[in-house]
Amino acid sequence: MPLADRGFDVHAATSRPGATLPAETHVLDLMDPVATRELVRTLAPTHLLHLAWYVEPGQFWNSPLNLDWIGASLALYRSFVEARGQRFVGAGTCTEYDWSYDWLDETTTPCVPGTLYGTAKNALFHTLAAAARVDDLSFAWGRIFFLYGPGEKPRRLISDAVAGLSRGEAVETTAGTQIRDFMHVADVAAAFAALVDSPVNGAVNIATGEAHPIRDILAHLGKITGRADLLRIGARAMPANEAPCLSAAITRLRDEVGFKHRFSLVEGLTDTVSQWGHAP
Amino acid sequence: MPLADRGFDVHAATSRPGATLPAETHVLDLMDPVATRELVRTLAPTHLLHLAWYVEPGQFWNSPLNLDWIGASLALYRSFVEARGQRFVGAGTCTEYDWSYDWLDETTTPCVPGTLYGTAKNALFHTLAAAARVDDLSFAWGRIFFLYGPGEKPRRLISDAVAGLSRGEAVETTAGTQIRDFMHVADVAAAFAALVDSPVNGAVNIATGEAHPIRDILAHLGKITGRADLLRIGARAMPANEAPCLSAAITRLRDEVGFKHRFSLVEGLTDTVSQWGHAP
Repeated sequence: MPLADRGFDVHAATSRPGATLPAETHVLDLMDPVATRELVRTLAPTHLLHLAWYVEPGQFWNSPLNLDWIGASLALYRSFVEARGQRFVGAGTCTEYDWSYDWLDETTTPCVPGTLYGTAKNALFHTLAAAARVDDLSFAWGRIFFLYGPGEKPRRLISDAVAGLSRGEAVETTAGTQIRDFMHVADVAAAFAALVDSPVNGAVNIATGEAHPIRDILAHLGKITGRADLLRIGARAMPANEAPCLSAAITRLRDEVGFKHRFSLVEGLTDTVSQWGHAP
Repeated sequence: MPLADRGFDVHAATSRPGATLPAETHVLDLMDPVATRELVRTLAPTHLLHLAWYVEPGQFWNSPLNLDWIGASLALYRSFVEARGQRFVGAGTCTEYDWSYDWLDETTTPCVPGTLYGTAKNALFHTLAAAARVDDLSFAWGRIFFLYGPGEKPRRLISDAVAGLSRGEAVETTAGTQIRDFMHVADVAAAFAALVDSPVNGAVNIATGEAHPIRDILAHLGKITGRADLLRIGARAMPANEAPCLSAAITRLRDEVGFKHRFSLVEGLTDTVSQWGHAP
C-alpha cells in the first residue's frame, strides 16, 4: 500500500458500506457536508488525498453531478483547513487541457476543457489553488491521463478489449491511430502517494511520458491473450473530433516529485490480462 | 423598477428578514440547498438573476466564504434547471480578468484573477457556461466593473469620499492616476435587467465604456459638494501592484444587449451626493 509504505497512518473514506480497503475505513457520503466536517474534525489529518468524483463510464462527461462534486470538494477542503490540515492533494484530469494541442504540459498548454467534467475539475483546481495560497496550505493537483488495470469497469477501451478477448469474442475498435499515454492503475496510485509525500505545489501530470497508438496497445493485448485473430481494428468509425495525439509532459512528476512508473506498457497489460476475472 | 418595467413578474429572494424590496419578497438563505430548491420549485421562474455573494468591503477579496458561494450558486443553478427554467444570468466581476491588461474585453483578454474572489467567480462562470450548454439553457454573465451611488457601503472610494466631504472632513487619497470605469448603481441594475431580457449568451461587461482617472472623479465630487478644499489627493501611497488602467470593452453590452447607460459621470455623482444620508 503506497501511502502506508511511506510511513503514513492511512484512513480511507468511502461511500460504499462494506468496502474492504487496505486502511482504516470510514463510511462517508461526501455530499453530506455536516458528516464530512465531523469526520475530518475527528481525524484531523495532516494530509488529504481527494480522489472521489462521479465517474460512471459513458455518463460522467456531461452529468450535472459534476456540479455537485465541485461543491462537495470545496466543503471537504474547508473542513480540512478548519482541522488545521497541512497538505491537500486532489485528482485532476488530462481533459482539463485544450485537446487541440498534442503536447499537454502543466505550465504551457492552455486549459480549455471540452466537457463539463473537465470544466468542473479545472474550475475546482483554480479555486483550490487560489484558496490554498490564501490559507498558506500546501496544495497539489494530479492530472490523471489514461489508466487501465485489473478491476477496471466495463465500457472503457482496455477493459472491454481484455474482457472480450478473454471470452473469445470479437473486439471491434476504431483504426486506433490515436496516440495516448496509458498508465497502469498501480502506478497511478503510487504516483499519487509520491505526490502526497512531496512538497510540490500546483498541477502535476500523472502519466508515463510514453504515448502509444491505441492500435499498438490492442496488438499487445492480442499477443498476450493469444487471440489477435479476434481483433477487428478499424471496424468502428473514428469519433468526430477525436484528438489524434495526447502526449503528457512528465518533467514535474519525474524531476520534481521524483516518481518513475514501474510497469512498462507490455508488463502492465500482461498483469491486467493475468488478473482479469479475479477479484481485484 | 427595471425588470417590472420590462414586463417581468418579479420575485426577490433575500437573506434579510424585513428587507423592503420593490418586488414580491421571499426570505431565503442560499446556503440552505433544501430551502433553495423548494423556493425555486414553488416559484418555477422562467428567468433567474443571481446577484448574491459575500461582498463585505475589505473582507471579501480573499474570504473562504467565496468557496461556499460557488457551492451555493451551483445548487441554485441545479434547482433552476430542475424547475425547467429558461435563462440564468449571474453576476461576474472585472476582477476575473488579468489586470496586467488595461483593455478588458470579454473575448480577447485572458482571465487570470489576482484574488480568491475573482478566481471563484471565474470558476463559477466557466462551470455554469459549460453546464448551460449541456442543459440547453440560455446563460449570461454580467461582469460588473466599478459602481457607486446612493446607499453605498463605507470603505469604498466614492462612498468614503462623499461621506467625508459631506461631513466637512478631509479626504485623503492616493494620487488618483488610476483609470477606472465607474457606473451608477441604477445603470448597473438597468443593464442587468436588459441582459436578463436579451438572448445574449456568455460574459458581458457591465460598464459605461468611459474610463476616467480617479482624481478627476474626486475633483468632480469636490465641485459638487463645494468642498474641494478638503481633498488631500496624493496623501496616501499608491498600493503596490495597483493597476494603472482598467478600461472596459462595452461592444457586447451596447450592440448585442442594446443597452446605453443613463447617468453621465457628473450626473451620477451629483445624484449620489444629493441623496447622500437619505434612505436609499
